[in-house]
Amino acid sequence: MIKRTSQDIRRLNRFEVLRRFYAGSDAVSRQDLAAATGLSFATVANLTSELLEAEVLVEAGHEDSSGGRPRALLAVNADRGALIGVDIAETAVHAELFDLALEVRHSVERPLPPGDVRPADVVERLADCVEELLRVSGVPRARVLGVGVSVPGVVEHEGGVSSFSPYWSWHEVPLRALLDERLRLPLRLDNPLRASTVAELWFGAGREADDLVVLTLRAGVGAGIAIGGQLYRGFTNSAGEWGHTCLAIDGRLCTCGNRGCVEAYVSTRGIAQTWRELAPDDTRASGPDDAATVAALARAADERDPTAIEVINRTGRHLGAAMANLVNLLNPRVVVLGNQVVDLLGERLLSATYEAVTRHALPLPRRAASLRRSAVPHNAVTRGAAAFALEGFLDDRDVFGPVSRMRQPRERRDAKRTGPAVAEGGLRLEG
Amino acid sequence: MIKRTSQDIRRLNRFEVLRRFYAGSDAVSRQDLAAATGLSFATVANLTSELLEAEVLVEAGHEDSSGGRPRALLAVNADRGALIGVDIAETAVHAELFDLALEVRHSVERPLPPGDVRPADVVERLADCVEELLRVSGVPRARVLGVGVSVPGVVEHEGGVSSFSPYWSWHEVPLRALLDERLRLPLRLDNPLRASTVAELWFGAGREADDLVVLTLRAGVGAGIAIGGQLYRGFTNSAGEWGHTCLAIDGRLCTCGNRGCVEAYVSTRGIAQTWRELAPDDTRASGPDDAATVAALARAADERDPTAIEVINRTGRHLGAAMANLVNLLNPRVVVLGNQVVDLLGERLLSATYEAVTRHALPLPRRAASLRRSAVPHNAVTRGAAAFALEGFLDDRDVFGPVSRMRQPRERRDAKRTGPAVAEGGLRLEG
Repeated sequence: MIKRTSQDIRRLNRFEVLRRFYAGSDAVSRQDLAAATGLSFATVANLTSELLEAEVLVEAGHEDSSGGRPRALLAVNADRGALIGVDIAETAVHAELFDLALEVRHSVERPLPPGDVRPADVVERLADCVEELLRVSGVPRARVLGVGVSVPGVVEHEGGVSSFSPYWSWHEVPLRALLDERLRLPLRLDNPLRASTVAELWFGAGREADDLVVLTLRAGVGAGIAIGGQLYRGFTNSAGEWGHTCLAIDGRLCTCGNRGCVEAYVSTRGIAQTWRELAPDDTRASGPDDAATVAALARAADERDPTAIEVINRTGRHLGAAMANLVNLLNPRVVVLGNQVVDLLGERLLSATYEAVTRHALPLPRRAASLRRSAVPHNAVTRGAAAFALEGFLDDRDVFGPVSRMRQPRERRDAKRTGPAVAEGGLRLEG
Repeated sequence: MIKRTSQDIRRLNRFEVLRRFYAGSDAVSRQDLAAATGLSFATVANLTSELLEAEVLVEAGHEDSSGGRPRALLAVNADRGALIGVDIAETAVHAELFDLALEVRHSVERPLPPGDVRPADVVERLADCVEELLRVSGVPRARVLGVGVSVPGVVEHEGGVSSFSPYWSWHEVPLRALLDERLRLPLRLDNPLRASTVAELWFGAGREADDLVVLTLRAGVGAGIAIGGQLYRGFTNSAGEWGHTCLAIDGRLCTCGNRGCVEAYVSTRGIAQTWRELAPDDTRASGPDDAATVAALARAADERDPTAIEVINRTGRHLGAAMANLVNLLNPRVVVLGNQVVDLLGERLLSATYEAVTRHALPLPRRAASLRRSAVPHNAVTRGAAAFALEGFLDDRDVFGPVSRMRQPRERRDAKRTGPAVAEGGLRLEG
């Protein structure tokens, strides 16, 4: 059953409006917001009034409108508070402190030991990162609006349990409980697929297109899916496990226990394995970790090592066929390629990949899809994790919504409202 | 950019409300509709008032509500007009005439010649079917609210061009123009994947679940995708080409020109090929057409022919791995298996398939997904095509919407309106 309550729609619209401030120019008029979102002016006026009241937006002067009254401009109140985005990757924990305009203020990193890492080790390093960010930035703990954490694998959205990790033998780890106890800050937990996809929606290809597939290619491989401008999570928040779709039935063994998965061929581990299979005696193919091996592969290809070039071509052929599967199944407008593997292997991998996509995709969805590299500045995963933290803050019923409205003294509610008259009992939504 | 205009939302909501009448009991109160859709009572009252005005709904007595006033019941006005649903399949054109309650009133069928069929032949038989349905039903042409046509392959939604067909060498056929000229009736054109998915949403698993994947398994193979209770079409209406996703890189040649596609293994053609490969001397494996061969395979397996059983097991293994790809990528709530291949091979195929899905899907999305056979009564494709025709009628701005409202005499508008007071210039929508 579809249950779109007016509360859900208000929350989505609040998010849609705020997203416009991150997508382009700093200061935006209500008229521009209405044009960009398709919402009515009255709805935009109500939503911006809420956001002004919560001090998320501030007035930012006026712009001349041709002939008419000057239009009031609004901007994000960057100093309203801080957001922290954390990327738990295979070899290190990366953490960044953002202002509310989602500009990076400070970055820190703590390496993780090689091999099997315990959840407690990760929690400890993550907490260290947060403490250091607060110390160097001078931001008091009470000004942190939220912490977003990206953890690899399948993450149950509500429970915050990491059910499966591609790097470590984690099963049913109650990560949310562990982090809640240690951090005592508002927390959002999700995986890098979804964090990069939200970053892409807000700061990358999503500024022009609503239907995106965002590929993550590092030790873990997956696809974030955005439909109609919204992140698609699936029924239990595990959509996007493209890395564990079968491309070669009876093929190479994957870390998940199955055979022939996409990840077994195009992850850093898979690429290193292809190199070792083609050049069993080449010591460069057995680096200290898979990312280092792939970096060595890129250097070998630059030196015209024919085996290295063949490894990249084979990887591109698998990657292209697997991308064509997404194109044929989902008919997206944009497919974004990002992360480590693309950064390391660059144009050489991309041209082999494009060639294979073109061969494997059906003509109609192929013509519709634009393939591009991620244009998100800096680390898409920490940025997306910070966007999740912001989403948590915007969902907060103590800050927004009818509950807080009733708890506030009447004078404050009326004094600050700048939008049109509102019916009793809550905002009235249009469209 | 997300552009959800209030007109779009009104159209979607009108559809959502009407769907409830097909999902369960015949007569429904406005209170039940509000509870089932999550829309406010005021919105439901406005939408039902529009539908009553257009005579799509009628008053149908009252029900006692515990303690309160008796609630008015509404029902679909079955005799408001007829809808025709057409399924262009490999060997025949099937057409059915439905009343507005989407009950089948009459069915006809015209066989197609074997081999490569010309678009003109299909158009001719389809027009014959429509004429015969009108003749036997006695429904005058003017009472036909729309014709929905399902044509195999990739169909451009707006242009009505069949870009690609799995049976015949059709490319860029302007089917809409050909049919418009011949039928002169309101027309909706789409493919069997999407027709079965809409039928499933309205009459099958969609009555309980919003996120569905509906598999079509006959000469063509594909997956219809429903997200949030809505058919997902992709950017250019070609989403769902699961049959042309690669399951076995470098594998068997497919009709699309690629290798290793799902369709090459699990379509009627693919299954017949597997049988011929395993039993090159068995004449039963080379029947007059692929569907007949698969029917013969089912009989051979019933007679405990070990090769026939092995063919079905191999098919199930491929089908299960390909279904697990959908489960891992989309994390649906329900996967519906339907159509010819499942009807012919039944439980024997399903148990081999379930075993393979269980092995290939990741634990979390596997636990979330329920796999079931289609429960849509009769032919899901003609029924879905008729639902598309109904959708076309509901979109008709001469019947609904502000344009017609302004053209109607004022007295009629006011006399029939039963909902709450409405602002000038159109209905006011609430979330």
